[in-house]
Amino acid sequence: MRAKTAALLELVKAEQPLVHHITNYVTANDCANTMLAIGASPIMADDIEEVTDIVCLSAALVLNIGTLNARTIAAMLKAGKKANALGIPVVLDPVGAGATPLRSTTAELLLRELKPAVIRGNLSEIKAVSGLGSATRGVDVSAQDILDAGNPDYGRSIAEDLATRFDCAVAITGAVDIVAGRGKTCFIENGHSLLSRVTGTGCMCTSLIAAYCAVTKDYLSAAAAGILTMGLAGELAYEQLPNTSRGPGTYRVELLNALSLLSGEDILQRGRVREG
Amino acid sequence: MRAKTAALLELVKAEQPLVHHITNYVTANDCANTMLAIGASPIMADDIEEVTDIVCLSAALVLNIGTLNARTIAAMLKAGKKANALGIPVVLDPVGAGATPLRSTTAELLLRELKPAVIRGNLSEIKAVSGLGSATRGVDVSAQDILDAGNPDYGRSIAEDLATRFDCAVAITGAVDIVAGRGKTCFIENGHSLLSRVTGTGCMCTSLIAAYCAVTKDYLSAAAAGILTMGLAGELAYEQLPNTSRGPGTYRVELLNALSLLSGEDILQRGRVREG
Amino acid sequence: MRAKTAALLELVKAEQPLVHHITNYVTANDCANTMLAIGASPIMADDIEEVTDIVCLSAALVLNIGTLNARTIAAMLKAGKKANALGIPVVLDPVGAGATPLRSTTAELLLRELKPAVIRGNLSEIKAVSGLGSATRGVDVSAQDILDAGNPDYGRSIAEDLATRFDCAVAITGAVDIVAGRGKTCFIENGHSLLSRVTGTGCMCTSLIAAYCAVTKDYLSAAAAGILTMGLAGELAYEQLPNTSRGPGTYRVELLNALSLLSGEDILQRGRVREG
Repeated sequence: MRAKTAALLELVKAEQPLVHHITNYVTANDCANTMLAIGASPIMADDIEEVTDIVCLSAALVLNIGTLNARTIAAMLKAGKKANALGIPVVLDPVGAGATPLRSTTAELLLRELKPAVIRGNLSEIKAVSGLGSATRGVDVSAQDILDAGNPDYGRSIAEDLATRFDCAVAITGAVDIVAGRGKTCFIENGHSLLSRVTGTGCMCTSLIAAYCAVTKDYLSAAAAGILTMGLAGELAYEQLPNTSRGPGTYRVELLNALSLLSGEDILQRGRVREG
Repeated sequence: MRAKTAALLELVKAEQPLVHHITNYVTANDCANTMLAIGASPIMADDIEEVTDIVCLSAALVLNIGTLNARTIAAMLKAGKKANALGIPVVLDPVGAGATPLRSTTAELLLRELKPAVIRGNLSEIKAVSGLGSATRGVDVSAQDILDAGNPDYGRSIAEDLATRFDCAVAITGAVDIVAGRGKTCFIENGHSLLSRVTGTGCMCTSLIAAYCAVTKDYLSAAAAGILTMGLAGELAYEQLPNTSRGPGTYRVELLNALSLLSGEDILQRGRVREG
Repeated sequence: MRAKTAALLELVKAEQPLVHHITNYVTANDCANTMLAIGASPIMADDIEEVTDIVCLSAALVLNIGTLNARTIAAMLKAGKKANALGIPVVLDPVGAGATPLRSTTAELLLRELKPAVIRGNLSEIKAVSGLGSATRGVDVSAQDILDAGNPDYGRSIAEDLATRFDCAVAITGAVDIVAGRGKTCFIENGHSLLSRVTGTGCMCTSLIAAYCAVTKDYLSAAAAGILTMGLAGELAYEQLPNTSRGPGTYRVELLNALSLLSGEDILQRGRVREG
């Protein structure tokens, strides 16, 4: 999976895929800079009058429900249908699913009407999307789910079941990340705890997955590559922090640097992926 | 007030309160990172279909009218009423009140229909909310109001009158910050002039106040704590600037670092609060 | 043109003009910080109920269609008409024109109904606005247009034609920037390739042009000044990068520093402007 990720990163830099985002206004800037950092090209567009035109130009579509509203939900649905019709991969980030009925029913609606390539969320969100009760707490993973994630087999079966049900790849990000799809599951152990102290790192990971989906039909590998890229950038960013400024301000600056400077060598030498 | 602030900061880190924001798209990212930096958990959600559900999960609600529109005004009103009904503190930031009739009447509407825990603004905004004429200039304090603020007794009486009228805490931020409520008034003299050279520091201050309101019923102290935290972070950030990069880019990075690294010790040793 | 730019920068710092933005949510924060960095004052407001009131307070108006929708298009039109009526300069950034019919027709609509002081875009966008076919690719310039831009005479005639047609200044930004208006054309060769690796640098350039338009009636010079400022800041930012962190995260921090620290001396000594 490390060699595959290194190859996919090269492909993104070569093809510079356009990645259409219908996403939240809190982290849209971070997602755009993430795309540019790895060599992809972002476009944020959410008006129902133009989303299908944008999809036609794009190589992947991100649907992120972070600050959803009636207007953007309709746009997501329309864009997603067009993407499905054209075979353009759709990556769903069900931000806060389980936290409110609107988020849960919107995630359900999108999954009923669309066929995603990848669904990425934290354990609370993926449990909600799976119809499992979860004490979701806002847009962050719940305390109970953090405990449950201590047992990777717990999240694994949830990811695998959801992947089978929607015939897509499913990624659960946490201390250990889980990616499941088409009878294959892998665990990724890169990352750094500071990633959870910066807003938008989940959204950025979803955008990375979409950029990789834009250059391969192997969506399981694309999902793993996105998570591995984010995790490694999180580690490299930490190592760049000076002793005098170890706070999240400097960390998010170094995170963008690391995404940009990440090499195939880094991935091969430092990736901690295990299949099983 | 310094000891109280230090204790409240510990409480925020321990309780990690969820702070619901209905706020502007210009500084939403900064506010979210501010919450994470001090240990709180942000959620930005403004659709009328879900705001009451989000309020039910939250420990405080920020209403910031920075980029208000008909859709979000209705959401603010609905969310605020639910928060009031549940005893969840509402912190109002009347951005640009006085600049346009829409902003003034929206601030009035929110104050007529809701009971805030704290109102925070610059002198121009607080004067507008108080029904006093003010030569407000956009979202920044007016030149005349900067002059008037040279006499702390001028702002003091305005803050005290408004606090009495709405039975809440009122904070006027400026060179010297004033917090009034329930027969008590205090002045805070921390901060740095570079804070006004970075967008969103007012919004971030309001978010900090809301995080503190989430962990205490003493809203006057919460308001003072939010302002003290922002002021101290502004000073600490300045001290971290290298001689080679004293610009606002580095300053806003160090500001987020400082918010994250601020200790009870810093507050006790460096806080300049005087009651009177 | 260098001396003029230095003089205009001084004027902006002295007058602190309020610059009204109706712009996209992806880069609104960057534009606001750009305004503060050079001494102007930003206000982002897009509700149709208040945009004319905001225009009345402002010294320039930015219309940026980056994340346009029906609600904001109507607001742009209303704000633009009021600005025209009051003689307040309107600066149009037709982000992604040519990429979708909605963007092209919106740019056309705004140009039919309004009289801009300056139109700024990349070659693909300006060609689309000119009614010339272009293989626009999202919000970035197309590969063919990058090649065509190798011949400055190609962009020059497009800029000059459009400037004549709308009796305004037209700026095409690229490796060599072109500004045309009222029988005068100039080429600016400052800048750095890293500028295209950070989202929002085009939007920030448009905001800079608007700040300069706020302090002079010579809109050609204002457009050139905005582009020169951005280009020089891009160079100065690059020179500040440490060897250990040459990524876009540090670069965008240094860009804001450079905008803030840019001096008349820098402009006079390093500006590469040629008229012809």
